[in-house]
Amino acid sequence: MMTNIYATIERPTLLLDAVRAQRNIARMALKAQRNRLRFRPHFKTHQSAEVGEWFRAVGVTAITVSSMTMANYFAAHGWDDITVAFPVNLREIAAINALAARVRLHLLVENMAAVDFLATRLTAPVAIWIEVDAGYRRSGVAWDDGAALTAVADRVAACDRMQFQGLLTHDGGTYAARTHAAIADAYATTVQRLNQARRVLAVHGFQGVELSIGDTPACSVLDDFGSVDEMRPGNFVFYDWMQVEIGSCTWEDVAVTVACPVVAIHPERNDVILYGGAVHLSKESLRRADDSPSFGAVVYLEEDGWSAPLPGAWVRSVSQEHGIVHADDATFAALSSRIQVGGLLGVMPVHSCLTADLLKRYLTLDGATLTMAPFPNSMSSQLVASG
Amino acid sequence: MMTNIYATIERPTLLLDAVRAQRNIARMALKAQRNRLRFRPHFKTHQSAEVGEWFRAVGVTAITVSSMTMANYFAAHGWDDITVAFPVNLREIAAINALAARVRLHLLVENMAAVDFLATRLTAPVAIWIEVDAGYRRSGVAWDDGAALTAVADRVAACDRMQFQGLLTHDGGTYAARTHAAIADAYATTVQRLNQARRVLAVHGFQGVELSIGDTPACSVLDDFGSVDEMRPGNFVFYDWMQVEIGSCTWEDVAVTVACPVVAIHPERNDVILYGGAVHLSKESLRRADDSPSFGAVVYLEEDGWSAPLPGAWVRSVSQEHGIVHADDATFAALSSRIQVGGLLGVMPVHSCLTADLLKRYLTLDGATLTMAPFPNSMSSQLVASG
Repeated sequence: MMTNIYATIERPTLLLDAVRAQRNIARMALKAQRNRLRFRPHFKTHQSAEVGEWFRAVGVTAITVSSMTMANYFAAHGWDDITVAFPVNLREIAAINALAARVRLHLLVENMAAVDFLATRLTAPVAIWIEVDAGYRRSGVAWDDGAALTAVADRVAACDRMQFQGLLTHDGGTYAARTHAAIADAYATTVQRLNQARRVLAVHGFQGVELSIGDTPACSVLDDFGSVDEMRPGNFVFYDWMQVEIGSCTWEDVAVTVACPVVAIHPERNDVILYGGAVHLSKESLRRADDSPSFGAVVYLEEDGWSAPLPGAWVRSVSQEHGIVHADDATFAALSSRIQVGGLLGVMPVHSCLTADLLKRYLTLDGATLTMAPFPNSMSSQLVASG
Repeated sequence: MMTNIYATIERPTLLLDAVRAQRNIARMALKAQRNRLRFRPHFKTHQSAEVGEWFRAVGVTAITVSSMTMANYFAAHGWDDITVAFPVNLREIAAINALAARVRLHLLVENMAAVDFLATRLTAPVAIWIEVDAGYRRSGVAWDDGAALTAVADRVAACDRMQFQGLLTHDGGTYAARTHAAIADAYATTVQRLNQARRVLAVHGFQGVELSIGDTPACSVLDDFGSVDEMRPGNFVFYDWMQVEIGSCTWEDVAVTVACPVVAIHPERNDVILYGGAVHLSKESLRRADDSPSFGAVVYLEEDGWSAPLPGAWVRSVSQEHGIVHADDATFAALSSRIQVGGLLGVMPVHSCLTADLLKRYLTLDGATLTMAPFPNSMSSQLVASG
């Protein structure tokens, strides 16, 4: 069976180890339960209705997505409590109203312009989270801008169609960490800042304001989450080479790898040329010790999945369709004895969210093809549900 | 009309200025004609049957693609002379044989293993190009490895189903150039090396070996292409911010820009947050003068298209769905007076090939939606044509 799935592969193909993914899901669900946190996993990583069912099997009923397109897709697959964890896109108000009439829809606001717009244009009730920038400097109200926080909260509270739920943040800062201690420090700072923002709102009269956090590094390595109410990690379902480097997981937790056809082998420069480039892996890279980029870790495909990443090999370059694996002398000698032109080599992606988004389907190790949210067929996210 | 197309946009949308694209096509077709070169444009950039018709209108009958998936797509749209400019992927032999029975299919070989495989497995005639590595170190037989070149050519010539056509190279080296002189130098070296390889084959008895070159920088800035037979540029149909930086074109030649919804404005840090991230723009970046990355140039959307890129603004960061535009003080002051949350801002992509591949459709300035090759519905490229 295992050998057969490889025989069917003609093009770069995203392999999914369902056992690992389900183990990752069960572990995180248990951690949330032990901490009495609402587990609202982010589905932007897998974007698959079938993978979503693995979450439902461990009791998950509330999810996070990053676009209205995904929200419509998962609503069409039976999910009815959905947070769109992205600053609300006012141009999709028609899609928002249509979906809010059918499911419990949670939106993020971080500025008065958006709240004012929603106050006049919403036709169905939505739950509202104020996005807080706890130091990452992406989107959100600055955690220490009490005046802005209370002004936005007041405006939300004044509108019947908006139910103020709490404060939400994404702490991208933990992605720069490389030790558990650094992750824990970054997380502690974030939670302290969120709680300070909550106290400002409490003094202003808002009670029961929830806190929602969500990065995979912190959710993976910490056991105590302090005073928060909800966790929204997403990447942990598959993990990837970046998370191994951060220390969120080991390579044996990584549930996806791209099977790439070998199209050329160049012993004179220790390079292997793969069919598998920027349109398959993405151009996400990590810096190696010598500051050169790596676009993926290299693994052998084996009967029961894939090997440990080869310490002396990496994807040194990608162009649109090409990936170039480079290896040190000893690794290249071993590598070239195991692969041939026309065979397959595995690349563990740097960032599984982007790779999955590009490849748009999974091949499980027992040969099943799992589908993902279809690419929207128009400029509008509304048409997906009916597509 | 112009204002109306923007009003319909809800999500990150790839705008296409058809007038500019058609002008780029006409200019390159004329240049090929003046140089008596076969013009075999690379269709991997646009991947669109409709855009392909603009090439047909100026007399193009032969095309280049980078995958069997694209080859099948364009064959289904009436193209019957197609080069797959990627080292042949032996795992797609069934698709190769099926397509070779219908169209004039050209394949690239660069190693004996591939030629041996094709010799035993081809069931229909194909044209064969030996890919030459003229110094770029991606794929190809090294230009100065005469023994390998003649061995591969001999093996090709010994097989009735393979018709040896010539030597083909992609000179990615011109992408590192930033002046016309540097592009001309890189091109001259490439052509000198290709001609040396051709002389080796001539001495060995091969006459009439063609030379095919194809990078957009050289094809854009040179007027004399020396002793070659075919040009295969692709990116020039749209160009992009990278090509402006290289000097291949001016911003007024760039035919695509992504319209991105504005979701937040942060005057305290001169940032504008866009709905438009790595899954829309790609993570391709250029280095700015201070070595910080830019993931795109920033333009205003205007009635007849878009403005010149703002010199003091750039996309400083992208995550999965977010793009963060940063601006210097003066530029931010101007920018923030022209945009608002819920409006649109344009991003001229760094690399239009990757952005088009991600967004999968175009909205022309007169409101037409042009489609692209559909994402293949299976691990096999064969099923696309029937899909």
